[in-house]
Amino acid sequence: MHEASHQLRCVGCSTVTSPDTVEKDFRCVACGELLEVEYPSWSGGPFPGPRRMPNPGALRWLWQERLQSKLGIDQSGVWRFRELLPILLYPEQAVTLREGNTPLYRLLRCAEELGLEHLYAKHQGMNPTGSFKDTGMTAALSQARERGFQWVACASTGNTSAAMAAYAARARMSSLVLLPDGKISWSKLSQAMDYGAVTCQLNTDFDGCVRVLAEVVRRAPVYLLNSVNPYRLEGQKTPALEIAEQFDWQVPDHLIVPGGNLANSSALGKGFLEMKHLGLSTRVPKISVVQAERANPLYLSLLHHDGREIQAMQADTRATAIRIGNPASWRKAARVIQQTGGYCEQVSEAEIALAKAEIGQEGIGCEPASAVTLAGLKKLVRQGKIDSSETVVLLLTGHTLKDSEYTIDFHRETLLTAEESAGLEHELTLRRRATLSLDASPDAVLRVLEAAIEA
Amino acid sequence: MHEASHQLRCVGCSTVTSPDTVEKDFRCVACGELLEVEYPSWSGGPFPGPRRMPNPGALRWLWQERLQSKLGIDQSGVWRFRELLPILLYPEQAVTLREGNTPLYRLLRCAEELGLEHLYAKHQGMNPTGSFKDTGMTAALSQARERGFQWVACASTGNTSAAMAAYAARARMSSLVLLPDGKISWSKLSQAMDYGAVTCQLNTDFDGCVRVLAEVVRRAPVYLLNSVNPYRLEGQKTPALEIAEQFDWQVPDHLIVPGGNLANSSALGKGFLEMKHLGLSTRVPKISVVQAERANPLYLSLLHHDGREIQAMQADTRATAIRIGNPASWRKAARVIQQTGGYCEQVSEAEIALAKAEIGQEGIGCEPASAVTLAGLKKLVRQGKIDSSETVVLLLTGHTLKDSEYTIDFHRETLLTAEESAGLEHELTLRRRATLSLDASPDAVLRVLEAAIEA
Repeated sequence: MHEASHQLRCVGCSTVTSPDTVEKDFRCVACGELLEVEYPSWSGGPFPGPRRMPNPGALRWLWQERLQSKLGIDQSGVWRFRELLPILLYPEQAVTLREGNTPLYRLLRCAEELGLEHLYAKHQGMNPTGSFKDTGMTAALSQARERGFQWVACASTGNTSAAMAAYAARARMSSLVLLPDGKISWSKLSQAMDYGAVTCQLNTDFDGCVRVLAEVVRRAPVYLLNSVNPYRLEGQKTPALEIAEQFDWQVPDHLIVPGGNLANSSALGKGFLEMKHLGLSTRVPKISVVQAERANPLYLSLLHHDGREIQAMQADTRATAIRIGNPASWRKAARVIQQTGGYCEQVSEAEIALAKAEIGQEGIGCEPASAVTLAGLKKLVRQGKIDSSETVVLLLTGHTLKDSEYTIDFHRETLLTAEESAGLEHELTLRRRATLSLDASPDAVLRVLEAAIEA
Repeated sequence: MHEASHQLRCVGCSTVTSPDTVEKDFRCVACGELLEVEYPSWSGGPFPGPRRMPNPGALRWLWQERLQSKLGIDQSGVWRFRELLPILLYPEQAVTLREGNTPLYRLLRCAEELGLEHLYAKHQGMNPTGSFKDTGMTAALSQARERGFQWVACASTGNTSAAMAAYAARARMSSLVLLPDGKISWSKLSQAMDYGAVTCQLNTDFDGCVRVLAEVVRRAPVYLLNSVNPYRLEGQKTPALEIAEQFDWQVPDHLIVPGGNLANSSALGKGFLEMKHLGLSTRVPKISVVQAERANPLYLSLLHHDGREIQAMQADTRATAIRIGNPASWRKAARVIQQTGGYCEQVSEAEIALAKAEIGQEGIGCEPASAVTLAGLKKLVRQGKIDSSETVVLLLTGHTLKDSEYTIDFHRETLLTAEESAGLEHELTLRRRATLSLDASPDAVLRVLEAAIEA
């Protein structure tokens, strides 16, 4: 069995491009929209080669067998599923850090509080650089290397630059990060620096960096790894395969995903739809997207324009990974929500903070953007959109260590304003863990213990 | 095949204690030294039950099979090896976050620079809470739960409290962290708070916290999870099994471990020695320990007292995870170094910083304490103690996100004093990645690229 040969189709006007002639900015030559990887041999459509649908039983067996393999590409939770990924000439040279194969945790306490029977968290923050971006980077960077590039680049201040720099270093390639100057978050840049990236701050905003980068990749042999790169989404669809496998190929009823740049919902939707097409599963879960109230362009688009157009906005939320006002993959995400029958919700800053603390109290740390999933789930349950017997999976996207400051601010009561906390004061207080100052005596500590046991 | 029944033996006077009557501070009643778990049925010694050595081939097969299992305890890289761990009445109730099964990365660039053929890093920082402590916590906390405790406690400001709080939360238990007041590192505490621990700062030093805690556990139903707990070491020995398995049961020639509280070297040594005893492998690797120059009590003990006594010291290093002047497990570690023919080395602050950057440039982030292993390896190679054809494994203990500030300070040149950098200025400069400020023009970025390519 082999990886499938692929082509690139525009999500706007459906124009098809060959991987060998695609523009360096990965935009459709006809209309400028994003491209998507598709596999003509699966569809038996008008494109070259015989229809060659892989056998689902054989695939499942093969993927299961690889769990015992000592080969790097088999130990990767992305390349283990390489039959559903764009072909590499030399698959054994895929650039991998053993990403994927992330845990699916049962959330018993949250489930009880919500009256749900089957609630899980798929934790993509357990990837090597601490976020879901790794699954996409291994796919796209392997393409870059196979196409002979020595340099890769992205505009990012966060998880993307960390993942890109790590995989570039692993491949002995060089990486370039462009970011807007003024408000650099040094801690977010620390990983890119650690992995040896060249980082440049430009006197412009984020969109300005994206424009400069597009020009740079046109003029120099640099491979673009921004979220427009369609190969990243191919890697990011593999958690859908892992989830299905973890449920013995009975996919869950509902998957809830944070909504920032919207690549995740797009990629996972693609993964589940392809699985159904190939006969690996018999249905797709409803895929819902949750945004922060002040960074909610998709929510507004679906509310006011049925997802046909989107208004860019000035985004603002402490959940930095989803502070995006102009999401690249909005069209793909809107389509996935509509195709799967999911919902789009928005949640407040206080709801995010509370949900993050509740996930923490299951022993599972996540970055604030991940917690919008639980906050959104609560709303969907209250609205009667999710039944108590349904199986729900929350997609957690980043590790709690990605933003320790948020956690500290929450517990020290400096995260939220009184206005933001309004209506949730009691719940928030219950979850806060202030650090107590005590005399160095066993009695003092025992009194704290007794009080905690009574509470 | 079953988990082995066990007893506890004093590492000082060899007195044997039953797990059911052990003191709550896990000290030997006869001499106050630490205890160690042993399995009488493996030795055929004077203790109860028939000699029941597990069959090594059957064990290997079983452990390999479990890689395909969907059971939580099989998916844990600790409990997968449960035949070599203290028995649980209800193994399926082990408290697990899917720890272990961490990657073994090949370090090609570092190997080339050192003239070594086979250099690897076993990355324990890829555990759920970002450090090697998770493997020990799953073992010890499962004991606590099975023995009916509702509270667990430790004195710690770092990785131990994070791991304890996470596993306690997972088990629906409560956790108490004692730490010295004055210089709290909030970022280190953020994980414990996130997982819902009760944190108390006492007006004393670290040893004072340990003393208060010993009294607290004597007077209240609280289970002690400090490093004296011998069950933690049983979990921490499992990376030895993983390493052996990853090399097809041909163990490497040399394993290099950071030396702080010295539980790691002790545990891994125990793991390799037990594997040999059980016929799972035919030899043990040399196990070497590397300490920071200003936190080197074991180094001095071996140099001046042949490892028979140790002088507590005021430790000081930016590698905070090994800033320990009075290591609990020094006796076990000294024995492991001597039994396996390993070495003890010390490295400077600049050597640590440089090694961390070199590991980073392989695409692998680690906390500074982990980097002492590469720094120490360089010294051992220079001294002719390691041959170019030998297989060497570095044990990385923590994730780079555990200490982003260190990384940032390094690249911004605020980490090391001129005195500390002396002699390594050139190498350090080569590894530093200052962030450049540029005009928002493609030309400016292209000039940076050209300069980087030429360099």
